[in-house]
Amino acid sequence: MSSQQASAKEPKKSADRVITPRAEDYSRWYTDVVLQTGMADYSPVKGCMVIRPLGMGLWENMRDALDGMFRATGHENAYFPLFIPESFLRKEKEHVEGFAPECAVVTHGGGQKLEEPLVVRPTSETIIYSMYAKWIQSYRDLPILINQWANVVRWEMRTRLFLRTTEFLWQEGHTAHATDQEAEEETLKILDIYQTFAHDWMAVPCIKGVKTDAERFAGAVRTYCIEALMQDNKALQAGTSHNLGQNFAKAFEVRYQTEAGGFDYVWNTSWGVSTRLIGALVMAHGDDTGLVLPPRLAPTQVIVVPIYKEAERERVLEGTRSIVERLKGVCRIREDARDGLRPGFKFNEWEMKGVPLRLEVGPRDLDAGQVTAAPRVGPETEGRREKRTLPIASLHESVPQMLEQIQRDLYDTARKRLEENTRRVDSYDAFKTLIEDPGGFLLAHWCGNPACEARVKEETKATIRCIALQAPEETGACLICGGASRRRAHFARAY
Amino acid sequence: MSSQQASAKEPKKSADRVITPRAEDYSRWYTDVVLQTGMADYSPVKGCMVIRPLGMGLWENMRDALDGMFRATGHENAYFPLFIPESFLRKEKEHVEGFAPECAVVTHGGGQKLEEPLVVRPTSETIIYSMYAKWIQSYRDLPILINQWANVVRWEMRTRLFLRTTEFLWQEGHTAHATDQEAEEETLKILDIYQTFAHDWMAVPCIKGVKTDAERFAGAVRTYCIEALMQDNKALQAGTSHNLGQNFAKAFEVRYQTEAGGFDYVWNTSWGVSTRLIGALVMAHGDDTGLVLPPRLAPTQVIVVPIYKEAERERVLEGTRSIVERLKGVCRIREDARDGLRPGFKFNEWEMKGVPLRLEVGPRDLDAGQVTAAPRVGPETEGRREKRTLPIASLHESVPQMLEQIQRDLYDTARKRLEENTRRVDSYDAFKTLIEDPGGFLLAHWCGNPACEARVKEETKATIRCIALQAPEETGACLICGGASRRRAHFARAY
Repeated sequence: MSSQQASAKEPKKSADRVITPRAEDYSRWYTDVVLQTGMADYSPVKGCMVIRPLGMGLWENMRDALDGMFRATGHENAYFPLFIPESFLRKEKEHVEGFAPECAVVTHGGGQKLEEPLVVRPTSETIIYSMYAKWIQSYRDLPILINQWANVVRWEMRTRLFLRTTEFLWQEGHTAHATDQEAEEETLKILDIYQTFAHDWMAVPCIKGVKTDAERFAGAVRTYCIEALMQDNKALQAGTSHNLGQNFAKAFEVRYQTEAGGFDYVWNTSWGVSTRLIGALVMAHGDDTGLVLPPRLAPTQVIVVPIYKEAERERVLEGTRSIVERLKGVCRIREDARDGLRPGFKFNEWEMKGVPLRLEVGPRDLDAGQVTAAPRVGPETEGRREKRTLPIASLHESVPQMLEQIQRDLYDTARKRLEENTRRVDSYDAFKTLIEDPGGFLLAHWCGNPACEARVKEETKATIRCIALQAPEETGACLICGGASRRRAHFARAY
Repeated sequence: MSSQQASAKEPKKSADRVITPRAEDYSRWYTDVVLQTGMADYSPVKGCMVIRPLGMGLWENMRDALDGMFRATGHENAYFPLFIPESFLRKEKEHVEGFAPECAVVTHGGGQKLEEPLVVRPTSETIIYSMYAKWIQSYRDLPILINQWANVVRWEMRTRLFLRTTEFLWQEGHTAHATDQEAEEETLKILDIYQTFAHDWMAVPCIKGVKTDAERFAGAVRTYCIEALMQDNKALQAGTSHNLGQNFAKAFEVRYQTEAGGFDYVWNTSWGVSTRLIGALVMAHGDDTGLVLPPRLAPTQVIVVPIYKEAERERVLEGTRSIVERLKGVCRIREDARDGLRPGFKFNEWEMKGVPLRLEVGPRDLDAGQVTAAPRVGPETEGRREKRTLPIASLHESVPQMLEQIQRDLYDTARKRLEENTRRVDSYDAFKTLIEDPGGFLLAHWCGNPACEARVKEETKATIRCIALQAPEETGACLICGGASRRRAHFARAY
């Protein structure tokens, strides 16, 4: 295909083909991987990126997996306008304070100055709840469970590919309920879906928790999140689910007739994950060779590389084609039959691009009715990296099994890393040392006072990522003021 | 689900639940159907609509079908920025003249006035070819076959739900090739895909043809299109595929090293279909009861309605559930088990929403091991509308067969209508009479002079929709000037 063909040239020895080792410069390593694998590229528009086919294939697989879980829990997709009248944003006080500084504003349309400027949606609560006000009359219209897949724009000063861009792709769910309790249940149900997705599909273990007021979504009553740990021991927020209470319902007059005959405002939730998850995927699993993709999300799960001298060309290519045909129904497989490239070059390219499993097919393999299987795994599981011989006759069983094993290994490795890099800390001095090196999650007591939280942030650049939902009750003293605390919070420096 | 629940109330006898008959006011009929089935709604943003779950479900099924065909022919998806620097648009002269008057312009971002205004993409040739200039060096990088699914904005004065809105969803393919011939082949290959999709999925027959210069895409060398006929005998352009020649390659310096070692500009194509297709679907098949959806695109293909008195409730619901479970793998099926609504009310609702097939399940049906099947078909096939009894044991075969039959019937009916409403005309007087009543496609000779074309448009509001690719050679005299013509053009009034 085009993007692969675009890199079909043998690599020059120029610097732009080299991936900086993680230990040397983690940030450059990340950018190198994203650019050189062809996941994304910079665009001529400040802060905006181009998502290339490999990145887009990942996002589409993420979308399909999440979409299936949303549907299975009764949600439907819809699509709301890109533009939001500026006055809408102002209707919820916290919301406008949070988002107005990040907005892109359309002032002209069709050659004329607009009477009211339009904001390019940074998130869609306002426009969506204005529609819900029209659609909802009675308790029989509830719940409304709607999701949209869309692009949003938040003006960013410092951007990084996938992690923070002015425009990004995401899904945003918006629901309306008859009771507070139902809204809270929905908020937590979605949080579970996000964690299941992160664990089972991305192979990225996450901490499920609630944000402090300082980190809450602008306009929410409570923000829940899942937080992951990257290989450089910085945290990354991978998804958020907000209980909005009646804040937006009151701002947009979304009222309904209750079963008893009275009137009440509805209870809303909103929740989202974005293309940022692709950045998380790169940083959670990648190595100095390049990308490492979990099989369940990899656009190509298996690459078949034929190995031949000219005389055997036809026979070997026929063999690989028949293997691809045979496995098409059980995995996402393709062959690399490009002429004029050494097998070793192809191996390197597909390893850099993170394809989970490579099958090598030579003439002697075919004679013996077998192939050589080489899994692409991280250094922590190097023992399993050894090549293995697989009989062709049972590939439809052995290949899916190997893919499942690779998926599990990736998760286990990441889980181990998360556990090893989560530490309990009881003094601010120790905290300041550990946050510098080795970083990771620091479990520390906090009294609940925003001033203590702000001081930690100012002095150490670490923030409270969340109070874990499963944090055990434990009496302690706040790291800063010594005030009473009933459970530890997850602190970390974060993306 | 929410949207269905929202309409779970028994209908009031208010005017807003009545669908205007087509014969009375076709345009109001269309709007009534779109609004009352819950496909879409007006939004508070001028010219922008909200696509509700039923409309979105249709679009997603369209997307998946087309996406599969694009992939099968080697295309990959990517995503390019929403914003385009204003200067980019100006690089191709015809292009900027065509699109600048329709642009929405962002002048402020992050609280500051931008140095250069950004245009919200009306189409993405300029931003995409600026990237291709970066990615393409040699003939080995070609072809590039990329598609994107995205929202675009074109400022419209007079809008209509789905048919013409300021923001709409679409796909836009953008390819780069080493030769003119390859680009032309690609342009026509895509045109074939569009026609196959219109015929096999939408059940809407189309004329495949080439546009006149007056109707050509701004910046293209040649624009091909598929044109369909709606029930009011107006034409609708359902998809376009453009051979861009080297126009954009020259504007954006997209050059490559040829195999021979020289340099040449690449040859581009671009092609797109949009949510407008949903409007076409409504107008091609709908009737005075509401929507009629072709089974291959219908979000719900089969609705199962249980019919029971209170005492039999559990037994009948269990029966319908087991039927739904059994058929889940072979069709998109759901049950309407809402309590407190008469079966007749449910029948009406699902008929209005265009569900192709209804299964009615009562206690006596279950005793006899059968269900009653009622297909939702247009008036032209009224004979087939009669209910039929189907044994439960073989539903997994009979239901898919019935759906396929309904799909074929819809196509045949539309095909017949197209043929009956395509007329050969040889005098301008007859043309003027026929274009008023009954309308439809008028096949007439045209000399190729834009002045003659413009006069027809001015005097009759009819335009040349296309010169059909399969138009037979036939010597004739131009309708207007009597000049020589070698084939007939398809004239019609159009959406």
